Amino acid sequence: MSLEQKIKSAVRDVPDFPKEGIVFKDITTIFKDPELCKEIHLDIVDRIKDLKIDAIAGIESRGFLLGPAIAMTLGVPFILIRKKGKLPYHTVNHKYDLEYGTAEIEMHKDAVSPGMNVFIHDDLLATGGSASAAAELILKEGGKIAGFNFLIELGFLEGHKILSEYSENISTLVAY
Amino acid sequence: MSLEQKIKSAVRDVPDFPKEGIVFKDITTIFKDPELCKEIHLDIVDRIKDLKIDAIAGIESRGFLLGPAIAMTLGVPFILIRKKGKLPYHTVNHKYDLEYGTAEIEMHKDAVSPGMNVFIHDDLLATGGSASAAAELILKEGGKIAGFNFLIELGFLEGHKILSEYSENISTLVAY
Repeated sequence: MSLEQKIKSAVRDVPDFPKEGIVFKDITTIFKDPELCKEIHLDIVDRIKDLKIDAIAGIESRGFLLGPAIAMTLGVPFILIRKKGKLPYHTVNHKYDLEYGTAEIEMHKDAVSPGMNVFIHDDLLATGGSASAAAELILKEGGKIAGFNFLIELGFLEGHKILSEYSENISTLVAY
Repeated sequence: MSLEQKIKSAVRDVPDFPKEGIVFKDITTIFKDPELCKEIHLDIVDRIKDLKIDAIAGIESRGFLLGPAIAMTLGVPFILIRKKGKLPYHTVNHKYDLEYGTAEIEMHKDAVSPGMNVFIHDDLLATGGSASAAAELILKEGGKIAGFNFLIELGFLEGHKILSEYSENISTLVAY
């Protein structure tokens, strides 16, 4: 079985979450299988190892699951991008629109230094709202966007198009 | 320098977070140093590798930073323990008291099967409220508590005493 097929078998479809009519892609079931996790982790490292990355940024919370392991294997820092109010030190913030209302994410100001080439990882690419907000945080601190990686892409939501304004390097392991 | 000294040098004290009078131990600065992360990760694996662990449970969000890497290295599943309303499938819940009000955490019901020996990891042991709530979730599903590990323990809050009701295997890399 290809890695793509293994991931598709492991991901669980949960209907009507978080609200009626939406089929949620549950990735927690991937973490039941340590060998699959290792294979995913090494596959991502292999896809991005030649991009001259200075740091991996992961988006809270599910971007924290594999982001640090990827950063450790590449031998680069891991940057936490969190929801508003969670990071204790001086932060840079970015607000973005949701379907209803707005969300705000933060990063420690000293997590990125000017010229740093930062690669953004998260579990799921949907509309690209949180990933592009993460890119804005990095750009505000003078960093560069090395690219994006996601386990899963919901292609019909066209997040890929929005992110291509920040980098051409966008990879997803599985697309729906 | 010992690992303990390295961690103490890397952790940042942030005064008056989340409120006046509290000195917050900021662990995000540990993740600036991939070699230190690897050393911490291997140290934790070494401390727990003989406990016949069937799964590692990590508590959202900071328990997600190293929990999956520890689980991958041990070759066991990683279980997500999250704040209420975040997990999409059937969950088991536990409420616990905070200084003011209550909090509630959840776990997928099928994450733990009866008899499974689950080891709980988080970044910080303070009062032990969230770690003992995590233990309750695992016990509710018929699991056993293999032990607890934390990067940092705030000894004066006596969380260790509460957790010792669940397991004797409690390890912390650094205590204050």
